[in-house]
Amino acid sequence: MPKLPMTLALVGATGEVGRAALDALDQLDFPLKALRPFASSRSAGETVELRGEELRVAALSDGAFRGCDVALFCAGADVARQWAQRAWTEGCAVVDVSPAFRADADVPLVVAELNPGALAPFRTRGVVATPGPTATAVALALAPLRAAAGVERIVVSTYEPASGAGRAGVAELEREARDLLGLSEPDPAARFPHRLAFNLIPQVGTFGEDGATDEEVGIARDARRILGDPHLRLTATAVRVPVFYGQAVAVNVTMREKLGVEEARQLLRGAPGVKLVDAPGEGIYPMPMLAANEDSVLVGRLREDPSQERGLDLFVVVENTRKGAATNALQIARLLAEEHL
Amino acid sequence: MPKLPMTLALVGATGEVGRAALDALDQLDFPLKALRPFASSRSAGETVELRGEELRVAALSDGAFRGCDVALFCAGADVARQWAQRAWTEGCAVVDVSPAFRADADVPLVVAELNPGALAPFRTRGVVATPGPTATAVALALAPLRAAAGVERIVVSTYEPASGAGRAGVAELEREARDLLGLSEPDPAARFPHRLAFNLIPQVGTFGEDGATDEEVGIARDARRILGDPHLRLTATAVRVPVFYGQAVAVNVTMREKLGVEEARQLLRGAPGVKLVDAPGEGIYPMPMLAANEDSVLVGRLREDPSQERGLDLFVVVENTRKGAATNALQIARLLAEEHL
Repeated sequence: MPKLPMTLALVGATGEVGRAALDALDQLDFPLKALRPFASSRSAGETVELRGEELRVAALSDGAFRGCDVALFCAGADVARQWAQRAWTEGCAVVDVSPAFRADADVPLVVAELNPGALAPFRTRGVVATPGPTATAVALALAPLRAAAGVERIVVSTYEPASGAGRAGVAELEREARDLLGLSEPDPAARFPHRLAFNLIPQVGTFGEDGATDEEVGIARDARRILGDPHLRLTATAVRVPVFYGQAVAVNVTMREKLGVEEARQLLRGAPGVKLVDAPGEGIYPMPMLAANEDSVLVGRLREDPSQERGLDLFVVVENTRKGAATNALQIARLLAEEHL
Repeated sequence: MPKLPMTLALVGATGEVGRAALDALDQLDFPLKALRPFASSRSAGETVELRGEELRVAALSDGAFRGCDVALFCAGADVARQWAQRAWTEGCAVVDVSPAFRADADVPLVVAELNPGALAPFRTRGVVATPGPTATAVALALAPLRAAAGVERIVVSTYEPASGAGRAGVAELEREARDLLGLSEPDPAARFPHRLAFNLIPQVGTFGEDGATDEEVGIARDARRILGDPHLRLTATAVRVPVFYGQAVAVNVTMREKLGVEEARQLLRGAPGVKLVDAPGEGIYPMPMLAANEDSVLVGRLREDPSQERGLDLFVVVENTRKGAATNALQIARLLAEEHL
């Protein structure tokens, strides 16, 4: 049903991921007929800019999605649960970046470069979900290595930015930092469970009974789905760090067969959705500050793991609001039209 | 030769670790007769405060160590290489927190709680070295678990603060953060290879030919020495984070025998040099902001690793200038006297 050029609804247009979607649309060659920005009633009436044009943001309401081909849901899980089904009822497909549907077996979970074939059954519920930034980054970085030598086990430690908690998270980190540097702005907000500025918080999301957070559990679950390997062994520690944008992951991977570093580099060069950024002797490696406006996953610090026979260590950075959310969602929207799904 | 109460030389008294040593002396019950603070000629003439008393800082010179029992070297590796042997020639034992002697087989590398027995041969060169904060933290946290069930392999990812690069590192991060928050202070310094404020730098130290940094290689080497296991398998990724004080480590460990989480918690409770900080449901876990003035290693986020049979994940924080350096050095100085070495 979605057609190109496309009429796109952008839900959460004034949020972090919504703005990243607007930036990506400015920079990508996306066949767009019209864009309809939506946000909460609090933000309705504001304007957003797309390709030099000001667009007025509307509140969601019945009938809002009529005439739209695809709705990009760039808001939280609550909004997605409340409105996604209605959009589909109104004839508009949904691509949701929130965790709302990631665990639902009848909702495809897709990274455009990795498993577009999984999109096919999207009509069951009219919704496609995108995985979180960590699973996206790890899966894109490891997919070419896995195809060549198989993956036995993965250990990841994340370094997650404030923007993962939305605009309120970004504002909270900035206020805290200003406060600590002597500008007297008290900080009543509580987007994070503790002060984040100049601190680290080993809690992203909420804890389950086994002592892992839903974020940590979700990384393994999403990686399994998008790599198509229900038995993939992965353990994760997720830590919030005082960075605004750009999510980093230290990855240790046990390959099934021995894979040399130079061979791995060769496989990553030109892999879809990946940029190899790996000349450490010249100070060149993935960092959040290099990921701004970046639609690929940056991979570097590739080296042999000295603690085992078939291990590799690497460091991966993804712009969490772009390839970790908005860019992937836009790529999926396009696939929905191009593949005539 | 060292006697209690002790006359202590403090080399690098105006630096980050030197100041932490003064704080620790204020707070610990250390049998001190006198303290002689030394620093570079640039800082000579400044004063430092100990137990309410102002002490004038002197530059190092021939004869400076005469009459001192132990010199705490809290400066860089260059200073240690230049002055440690002279101190011993003048009858003063040396405890060095820098990396200068950590790899030397005839210099004991010691964490006071773990391998005090390794101190004995210190008279060969008159020097004892302390390991870096990561190795100290990982070894203290894993020692009780290792004694109970053995350790097969360890994967660590570090989150290292600006103070690991000394006072200049702390000042640089603060200037950068002020600059980015709109206070116009340009930053000409280059203690770090890239901007650190609101960024992550996956380079601590310098790169070797295998693509690992000396910091990453050193973590494995030091952990082997202080745990007394030359075959310990450990791989590390070291990342500088925009935090001033307090070093964190995400640890994934494969035990030789299955060890339950509750059993592991029990072993960590009351383990020497360790504080169990592990009630995640109440938001209680190790964080840098909890480590200020802390002489123990904070251990939490203890949970089963779902990716393997005998795995555990944990999160560890150490005050890098205290137990990661100054506190351990003071404890070793005391052992040198008490054990009549």
